[in-house]
This record gives sequence, structure tokens and C-alpha cells, in this order.
Amino acid sequence: MVVTTQNVAAVLHGVGDLRIEEVPRPVAGPGEVLVEIRSVGICGSDVHYYEHGRIGDHVVNAPMILGHEASGVVVGTGQRVAVEPGVPCGHCEQCRAGAYNLCPDVRFFATPPIDGALAHVVAVHEAFAHPVPDELSDDAAALCEPLSVGLWANRKAGTTIGSRVLVTGAGPVGVLCAETARAFGASWVGIADVQPDRLKAAEAFAVDEVIDARRGVDYAAYRPDVLLECTGAEPVVDAGIRALRPRGRAVLVGMGASGTQQLPVQAIQTRELIVTGTFRYAHTYPDAIALAASGRIDLDALVGARLPLAESERALTMGHTDPSVLKTVVTVSEG
Amino acid sequence: MVVTTQNVAAVLHGVGDLRIEEVPRPVAGPGEVLVEIRSVGICGSDVHYYEHGRIGDHVVNAPMILGHEASGVVVGTGQRVAVEPGVPCGHCEQCRAGAYNLCPDVRFFATPPIDGALAHVVAVHEAFAHPVPDELSDDAAALCEPLSVGLWANRKAGTTIGSRVLVTGAGPVGVLCAETARAFGASWVGIADVQPDRLKAAEAFAVDEVIDARRGVDYAAYRPDVLLECTGAEPVVDAGIRALRPRGRAVLVGMGASGTQQLPVQAIQTRELIVTGTFRYAHTYPDAIALAASGRIDLDALVGARLPLAESERALTMGHTDPSVLKTVVTVSEG
Amino acid sequence: MVVTTQNVAAVLHGVGDLRIEEVPRPVAGPGEVLVEIRSVGICGSDVHYYEHGRIGDHVVNAPMILGHEASGVVVGTGQRVAVEPGVPCGHCEQCRAGAYNLCPDVRFFATPPIDGALAHVVAVHEAFAHPVPDELSDDAAALCEPLSVGLWANRKAGTTIGSRVLVTGAGPVGVLCAETARAFGASWVGIADVQPDRLKAAEAFAVDEVIDARRGVDYAAYRPDVLLECTGAEPVVDAGIRALRPRGRAVLVGMGASGTQQLPVQAIQTRELIVTGTFRYAHTYPDAIALAASGRIDLDALVGARLPLAESERALTMGHTDPSVLKTVVTVSEG
Amino acid sequence: MVVTTQNVAAVLHGVGDLRIEEVPRPVAGPGEVLVEIRSVGICGSDVHYYEHGRIGDHVVNAPMILGHEASGVVVGTGQRVAVEPGVPCGHCEQCRAGAYNLCPDVRFFATPPIDGALAHVVAVHEAFAHPVPDELSDDAAALCEPLSVGLWANRKAGTTIGSRVLVTGAGPVGVLCAETARAFGASWVGIADVQPDRLKAAEAFAVDEVIDARRGVDYAAYRPDVLLECTGAEPVVDAGIRALRPRGRAVLVGMGASGTQQLPVQAIQTRELIVTGTFRYAHTYPDAIALAASGRIDLDALVGARLPLAESERALTMGHTDPSVLKTVVTVSEG
Repeated sequence: MVVTTQNVAAVLHGVGDLRIEEVPRPVAGPGEVLVEIRSVGICGSDVHYYEHGRIGDHVVNAPMILGHEASGVVVGTGQRVAVEPGVPCGHCEQCRAGAYNLCPDVRFFATPPIDGALAHVVAVHEAFAHPVPDELSDDAAALCEPLSVGLWANRKAGTTIGSRVLVTGAGPVGVLCAETARAFGASWVGIADVQPDRLKAAEAFAVDEVIDARRGVDYAAYRPDVLLECTGAEPVVDAGIRALRPRGRAVLVGMGASGTQQLPVQAIQTRELIVTGTFRYAHTYPDAIALAASGRIDLDALVGARLPLAESERALTMGHTDPSVLKTVVTVSEG
Repeated sequence: MVVTTQNVAAVLHGVGDLRIEEVPRPVAGPGEVLVEIRSVGICGSDVHYYEHGRIGDHVVNAPMILGHEASGVVVGTGQRVAVEPGVPCGHCEQCRAGAYNLCPDVRFFATPPIDGALAHVVAVHEAFAHPVPDELSDDAAALCEPLSVGLWANRKAGTTIGSRVLVTGAGPVGVLCAETARAFGASWVGIADVQPDRLKAAEAFAVDEVIDARRGVDYAAYRPDVLLECTGAEPVVDAGIRALRPRGRAVLVGMGASGTQQLPVQAIQTRELIVTGTFRYAHTYPDAIALAASGRIDLDALVGARLPLAESERALTMGHTDPSVLKTVVTVSEG
Repeated sequence: MVVTTQNVAAVLHGVGDLRIEEVPRPVAGPGEVLVEIRSVGICGSDVHYYEHGRIGDHVVNAPMILGHEASGVVVGTGQRVAVEPGVPCGHCEQCRAGAYNLCPDVRFFATPPIDGALAHVVAVHEAFAHPVPDELSDDAAALCEPLSVGLWANRKAGTTIGSRVLVTGAGPVGVLCAETARAFGASWVGIADVQPDRLKAAEAFAVDEVIDARRGVDYAAYRPDVLLECTGAEPVVDAGIRALRPRGRAVLVGMGASGTQQLPVQAIQTRELIVTGTFRYAHTYPDAIALAASGRIDLDALVGARLPLAESERALTMGHTDPSVLKTVVTVSEG
Repeated sequence: MVVTTQNVAAVLHGVGDLRIEEVPRPVAGPGEVLVEIRSVGICGSDVHYYEHGRIGDHVVNAPMILGHEASGVVVGTGQRVAVEPGVPCGHCEQCRAGAYNLCPDVRFFATPPIDGALAHVVAVHEAFAHPVPDELSDDAAALCEPLSVGLWANRKAGTTIGSRVLVTGAGPVGVLCAETARAFGASWVGIADVQPDRLKAAEAFAVDEVIDARRGVDYAAYRPDVLLECTGAEPVVDAGIRALRPRGRAVLVGMGASGTQQLPVQAIQTRELIVTGTFRYAHTYPDAIALAASGRIDLDALVGARLPLAESERALTMGHTDPSVLKTVVTVSEG
């Protein structure tokens, strides 16, 4: 590892305009450490910024480094870490209540105008650079981020022994929701999708049933009491909620195209269902790391393609060129 | 009290066809007692059956006695009781879990084909004939039913000291939701409506703010963390949910005209709101009785009109003829 | 299977006086089925009644059939079932609240004066004869009873992903508490004992650490946030509670010799610990069966000895003659 | 208000050695404000330090200003505030989880070696100087501290509508626990003590029953499901826990003389009781202020004596000289 004053990053300058270029090397602020990045997983939000320049109200108005699923090595100590990408203020009402993911002043990697982690070096608060044991590869350490999404969704759902969990959407987040549901003790886990590649890929994971939703499917036949909705598609959300047993819980993980959706309110009322959603996660990293380290969830199995930083643009389009690739990782540096 | 073998009831024979007529006197089955009815509150569902002959999938196909908010006196013992109108099976999964309101085999007064309580005598399981103390009038004992709706809604909402509770809809259920929220310790309770009579009536109750929603109103300005939605109207549901603070809870109490509604899913996700609904109530009667008996909630204050059984039809239309009447009570017999 | 009018059972007539003798064949009451018993696990309580004739206030004043961990086959249908041994009244306050294990009128097998299951045929309410799939052996079906104890203890503890669970006492209940903790997602599970045979036996199970407590041990070094206490021994209870991290939970599963014990109240207060206990279990059988059927918990691995009904007395003393036997099963009939 | 560079405080130099003397005027650190103190309530812990020089492991080894129930006015802005006396680190595991009262690095007024609030001017983090409305007197603002203890105890107990709450110990904390239980909606609140003066004083507050425990009393006759234990006396703790109904909750608020106590473990187990304790409070001040401002809890009614700073020593001994005084307030300055 040669530490220089240089830094190179994958910077989004506009729609479809990603450049690998020199950027200032960050300086660690109070409480921060510098992390030499090893692996960065590509997330759908990175792709969305690349293709559309915005996600809802978050608009890329100035060049921004992409990437928020990251692992690396702390400069100076050599400690391998998983980088939790959102650092909250620590002082507001939400932070004091322990709900730091809802901090209005959170600084989250690759959410404009905050730079992301597709860079040789980033600065992060030391409390958010979580040590990882040798059992975790660099890629797995990076993928503790989407695993955190799955953990948080299951926490909101109260998944436990006895739960029958239906996951709609077999992308990387859906698969991790399903795997995590199993780790929480769920008695039955099914995952549904309409894309053949994803259905095929899902079969490699520890689910009880891969549900081909291309033809009409009656989710209620599976008698789920938890829905982890990872598509954001209105008809799927509706059908998934309708399928729930009395007192079931639906957690909306996938973001839809619209801010509003038709929901089956009568079913919610007559069965006293609970519908909620997740916004990122809080307090999940230590558990995600432990889960992956124990072997109960194999994050490396998600990785379908590995590319160097120079090929970040190809990494962003990999989902279109090869839909069978669940997760692409950019290997910024190797251990 | 003269017990005869006769029974007279208000029987719905079809849309707009209510008849006061002789009906068979019920025979107490195993575990049941006979109750000589004193007061019966008229509920919007009674009016709806009278006007439309159905509520959703519940269709009045045969003559049915109306009324499910009832009090009376146990035949033989003279014990004054509030009659809990839904008797569950006691054996199914929901019953065993304590969620007896979700029992699929519940027999609920005045829900087809089960007869209601607008009769001289009804039979009910002894465990659902709840003794009431002298502090409660017969009317108040009957109105423990809508009070139960308010209690249950606040239980689902987790209303407690510190909660800021917005109630939308100032009908009898809305008012009781608001009063109960106060009893749970809510720090702020506001109630909104668009009807001048209701707004005026609501001012008599212990709320912090009566909100006139006829003109545009920004519910978010009240910073609620609980929404008790009692209108069922789609725009109100939407606006109410959007107004909630992070981690707020919306309880849909009012039934809408349609089984689906546009809900603000993005707000639900980014603020991790919880949306749920209520279906009747469970385990509420003892608490409702105690609340009313302690004077913390004045149920008699809700009663705007009292009519004898013979005038049941007029009681059903009172809401239209005099909108300032929050609750009409049919006095079947007097103590 | 030859169904006769005969029945043979292991009947406790007094301290140390167990007789294999003919008893009346039970008649199924309303809602009941007859079950031809296959396997019965021997529990410490059976041994205690055999050796002392009482457990606390429960005194064996008349001959009583022992045994409450049972599986069998429903007479008439041939359905293989696990027999949940406690049938509650279904009507009391506890039952209606879903806490049927606390029903004061529960009829529990082999708790005086209710007969147990060490018999060819028993009668049980159909809702408590839980169907088991082929994946479960007769022994495993019987051992869903102690597995229920472990499930319930972990439910009370709130064990989940991230929990560090210390189990004190490596008898069959302790081992099942530990295994169930793992199934709930616990991040670390340790089990402690002082008996060499048990320590050795515990190593076969999926725990992170088997703790030899014969020498001084500082449980706090393991930083548990859950204690599942299965010894009932005062010094162990005290040390286990003291070891808990802030906001930790202690569940007292093992019954002590005395009704009161010295507990570390100052630690409970300054760390806001939660101490509770379990009394049997509720709503656990379906989950226990699913857990065992899925292979996540291997109940057959607990069985160290199998004896016929005629040797029930030897089965009761097996724990003394061979301490390495975690669980003895009486095979009343074979499938 | 004349702001000078002087400061005068009540400083404890040793057992029984309290001196009113000049001390350095504090300088506001980052995020801190200076507060000119108005009222300071005298707490049992202040008295204990004065009489014994220590509480458990907390030893007064150097001169320390007493007092931690304080209100005042922010220097510079004139904002009236209630001073929350414990300022946590904000970064540790407990703080991030929202349990800041368990922060191991909390700096708490008048807990050695941190100075207290019996001074003309103190410095406190701005987030812990809670604005109070005009409805609150200076004394009431100070007494939001013991009110917070009552709020927190009831939060731990889950007091709500339907709860039957037994409070043991009718000192100021007991009375506030009882009053807060009522505000949480408790259906019945009883308070027990053995001192005639306290029993008489308690009758002025909104409780259903003042229980004279000088003669034998069977708390179980009151059928409590919540115990708020404010004496710390072992026999009372034992009797109170034994009195609880199934699934009841005991919250140990009062500190006992010993770190361990005999608790009725068998009752805890067979009735599945929950026993926990409180250590100060978290997130209570806004609610305490709102409760007092709304008039639901009258904190001024607790104040039995008011003395100037110069008479702080007399204030500390007031509990002995006049046991009918529930709470003594030192008026450091007047508004």
C-alpha cells in the first residue's frame, strides 16, 4: 500500500457522464479516519443517478463521486473495515432517540451533494468504520451495506421463528431480505419475481420457494404473515399486502416510481395489517458483520462480476448487459 | 320488570323498510344469559344497512334486527350490563392469540345474518355481558361500544404521554377517539372536520384544538405523531398521513367508500411511518366501563336525542334531520 | 395397531412406588381425541414426583400416571401427533388474553391430580394434538415439549440477531434453550455447567462456547445481554444476572429449591435489567414442530436411552445411573 | 438580574459540613449555556451525601456543590428553563441506542466529582436546558426532575388505561409516581406508607386509595398489575412483587440499603412477572414540562418549605425536622 497525496475517483458529471479522475485527497476531520477503499458494491441508486441524474428530490447538480457500499483499510492502523455510509448529526431528536437513520442532517455517501466511496481514499467518522474479522472478504465487507437493508427490513417486520415471509423482488436486496429472514428464524421464506434470470439466480439461496410471478400467482396461498416488498411496483405492493394473514406486517423496501400508490385499505382495516417502510437502517452493521462472519449469510455468493475502478462505468451498466449478475463489485484496490 | 314470553324488536326487512314487530323471545344457550335491553345507541352502520341494505360484502338478505350498542339488565339477576356485541368462537387461531375481534366465526350483533339488540330481550354469552356500576347511566353503558372503538384505535396507535394526536372526523367515533387519546395521556389532541355542526359540537369536548378543515389546512403544522383517521375519505387519509412526524403512526378507523385508496407511500418509507387499521376491538369493555365510571369520559354528553323503540326509524334518520346530534339513543325500556 | 378396551400405564402410587398396571381406557370428551401413545420423554419433574411425591404445592395424594412429553397416533385417523400436555379452560382472563399457560384451571398431564401420558392411550383436546410431518421421529415429536420450553424462554428474552445469550445449566432444557437461541439468530451462545458429563455432552451442540463453571468463571467476560437460567441455583442466578450488559434480560427457567432468592437488585436498577420467569409455554407447538422438521434443531440427538413402558422405573432413574444421558425416552409403542 | 463575575454556591466539604461560599463562575463550553439558577429542589440523595459523604460507590472526596433539581434563566437570552441534570457523552453504545441515562460517561449534577446546581450560575449543554412556559413556576420547573423519575418508572411499567398501580412509599418520588400513573390512564392507583405524616400528605393527591401499611396489609387484595416500588425496603419489595397479578410488572425505583435482596422468584416464575429497575430517566423532560404546564400534575403542591440559598443546610435537614414537608425548595434567586 503506497499512500500518496493523490486520490482517484469515479465522478458523475452528468447523466451518462462518469469520469475516472483525480480528486482532492480528503482530510480527516474531528473524529474521522481515512479509509483506503478496497471494494465497492454497485447499487441500483448509483445506476439511477448515472442514468437520470437524480432520485426524486435528490438532484446531482455538481460533480459527485458515486458508490456507498464500501470496505477498506484504515490508513495508519491497517484495520480492515466496513464503511457505514450515512453519518448522522448525533444531536437531533431522531439521533437522541436512537433513530439515527432518520436524522435530517445525515451525510450519506453518494447522495447529492455528498461524495461517495468509489475513490482510493475517503474520510469517515471512526464510529462508522466498523472493524471486520478475517472471515469476511473485502467484497463481503462492502456488501454489509445491502445486508443492513435486509436486516432493517426484517427488524421492522418483526420476523422471528414462526414467521412466514414473502419477499417480492429477487434483486440483491430481495435476496438479502430473504436470507436475513431465514437468519431471524422464519419458518418459511418465499421469493417472487418475474425475470427469468433472477428467478434462476434466487434458487441458489436458502429459500423455501422461488415463486415465478410471470403467470398469475395467488400469494395468499402461501399464507404469509410478513411481506418484504422489494419491487416498489404498485400491483405487487397491492397483491402482497392483500395476501397477508390477519395482523400481518408489510414492509415497503423498494421505492416506487410515484410518491403515492393504491393500497388495499379495506384489507388493512379488516385484518388489522401493519404497513410500514424502511429508510436505510440503523444499528445494523455489527450484526451484519457477525452474520456474514458466522457463515450464515454468504455475501460473496451475490457477487457476479468484479471490475477495477477504471471500469466503473461498465460496472454501472452490468445489470443491463447481464441480468444474471445480482451484484457487481468495483475492486478499487486489492488486499 | 315483567318477563313475558313476548319480544318486540326493530326489524329491517329491506332498504328503508324498518318494522317494529313481535319476534321470538330468544332462549339462552349454553353459557348465555338473557338481557332485557335498556338503551341502544344508533351507529352509522345501522343507518347504512337501513339506507343501502348492505355494507360491503355484508348483505341483509333476510329480516334482521338492527342495533349493536346496547345496555340492559340480566334477566333473573337484575345485574345492569353493557353488552359487548361480538361473541367470538373462542377456539380459532385468532381467539387463542387473544385477537378475538379477528375471529372469522365471530357472531356480531346486527351484522347479517345475526340479529341485533333493538329488542326487548336478547341472548348473549355471559362473558360478554359486562357488569356496570351505578355511576353509569343506561345510555352511557350502551355507549361503551363506540368508546371501545376509541380505546382500540388509541391502543393500536400507542397513544401515551407525549403523543400529539390528530383526529380527522368529528363524528361520535372521532370525538371518542379524541377523548380517549386524552385519557391515555396525549400531550396534544386536535380534531378536524368540515361540517359546521360537528365543529361546533366538538368544542364541548376536551380537545386542544378544533380544526376547521373547510378551508385548506396544513395538518403538518400541528406536528402530530398519531393520526386517528375517522372519515375514511381518501384526501383526508392522504393529508393526515403526510402530516405525521418521523416514526408516526396512522390508524385508519373510518371505512372508506372503496377497498383501495391512494396512500403516500414515499412519506411512509422516508419517515418510516406505520399505517394500520382497526376492526372493532378486543378486551376493551372493562376499561371502557372504568373510564366512563371514573368520570374521565362523559358518554352522556354525546347523546343528543333519545327516542323510544317505536320511533327507531326516526332515530335512524336523526343524523340527517339534525346534524348537530352526535349520538341518538333508543330507550327500549327504562330502569 | 390393535385397539382394545384395555389400557396399561406407569402409575405412581407413592414415593418410589411406580407400578405398570391396567388402568381404565379413557373416553374422549367433547372436542377430544384418543391418542395411542408412541414415545414419552422423561422430565425432571417426573423424576421429582417419583422421588419426593410432590413438587412444591403439587402433592401426589392419589395414584397418578406420570409423563407429559408425549407423541402418538390419533385413534381412528392414524394422524401422528405431538401432544401438548396442558389444556387450558379457554374462557378465563388469561386464556382470552392469549396467555393460556397462566390459566388457573389448566389441566396439565402428570401434575396432580391429572394423569399423565405414560399409558397406551390418553385423551386430549384435538386442538392440543398437533399433527407432525414424517420428518419428525416419534421421539422428536415427544420432545417438542422441552423444545417448547426453550422457545418460550427465548421469546420472553427477546433473543434475536445480535443477542449474546448465556445459558446456565446444560441439562436437556438448557441445551434446547441454547439451540433455540441459535435458531432465533443469536450472535453468540454460551452454555455453562459444572458437571463433566454435561459439559462433554454440550459440546455436540451448536453453541459458541461450552463454559466449565467448576472453577471460578466471570460470566461478564462474555458480555451477555440475555441470560437463560436453567439451574435454579441461587449463586448461579445471582452471577448470571450480574453478568448482563445494560438493558439485558434474564429469564428464570429453572425452578429453585426455595421460593425466594437473593437477587442483585442494585445491578437490576443501575443497568435497568429485566428479570422474568417462564411457566411452561403458550403457542409454541407449531413452531417447535416446524423447527425440528426443518432440521434446524435435532431433537433425536438429545435421546441417550430408550426403554419400553415396562421399564419406566429404570427410565426415571437413568439420570442418576448415567449422567451422560441427556434425555431418556420411554417407547410405549412403536410405529 | 445583575450578572457579575461572582458565583456563590452551597458546597459540601465533608459529612455534615456544608458551606455557602464563593466559587468560580463557570465558563460555557462548546454547546453549553450559562443558567442563572432560580429554584433547586432538595432530593434524598443530597441529604444522603450531606449525612454520609457517599452513596454506594459514589464518594465525595473533594468539595462538591450539591443539588440537581434545578430551574433558572439562560444568561443572555432570558429564557426560563428546567435544567436536566445529566448530560451524556452522546457517542457511546447506550447513547446511540437512545438509552442515554445508561451512558457510562454521563456527567450528572451533584454526583461526585461533578458539581451540582445549588449555585448562582451553572453551565449546562443547551440541549439539556429545556424551555418552560409561563404556566410553570420556577419551583415547578425545578421539580420536573423528580417528575421525570415518575414518568420513567411508569414508562418502564407500561402503565396505561386499565392498569392497577400500587405505589409503595409516599415520599415525593412515590407521590409523583402515583400522579404520573394517573396521567398515563391507570384505572386504579394506590399508595402505601407507614409514616403518618406521609399518609396524611398523600391524601391530598389524586390517588384512589392511601394504604396505611403500619398494620399488616395484603397488597394482593388490591389486585395490582403494576408495582412502583419507592421504598427500597426488602420486605416491601417482596410483598409488593408477591401481590402482582399474572404478567404484572414491578419497577424498583427506590434504592435499597444493600446491593442484593431476597426476591420471590417462585412468584416471578409461576406468574411470569417482570421485574426491572430504573436508573434516572431519558427523554422525559419535554413530557414532564407539558404535563405540569397542562395542570394535570401540580408540582407546586409538593413544595412544603422554601428557603434561601443561605439556609441550604436547614433545607437539607427539613425532612427530619418536619416530616410533613414532602419537598423543600431552595430559592437561589427570584424571578
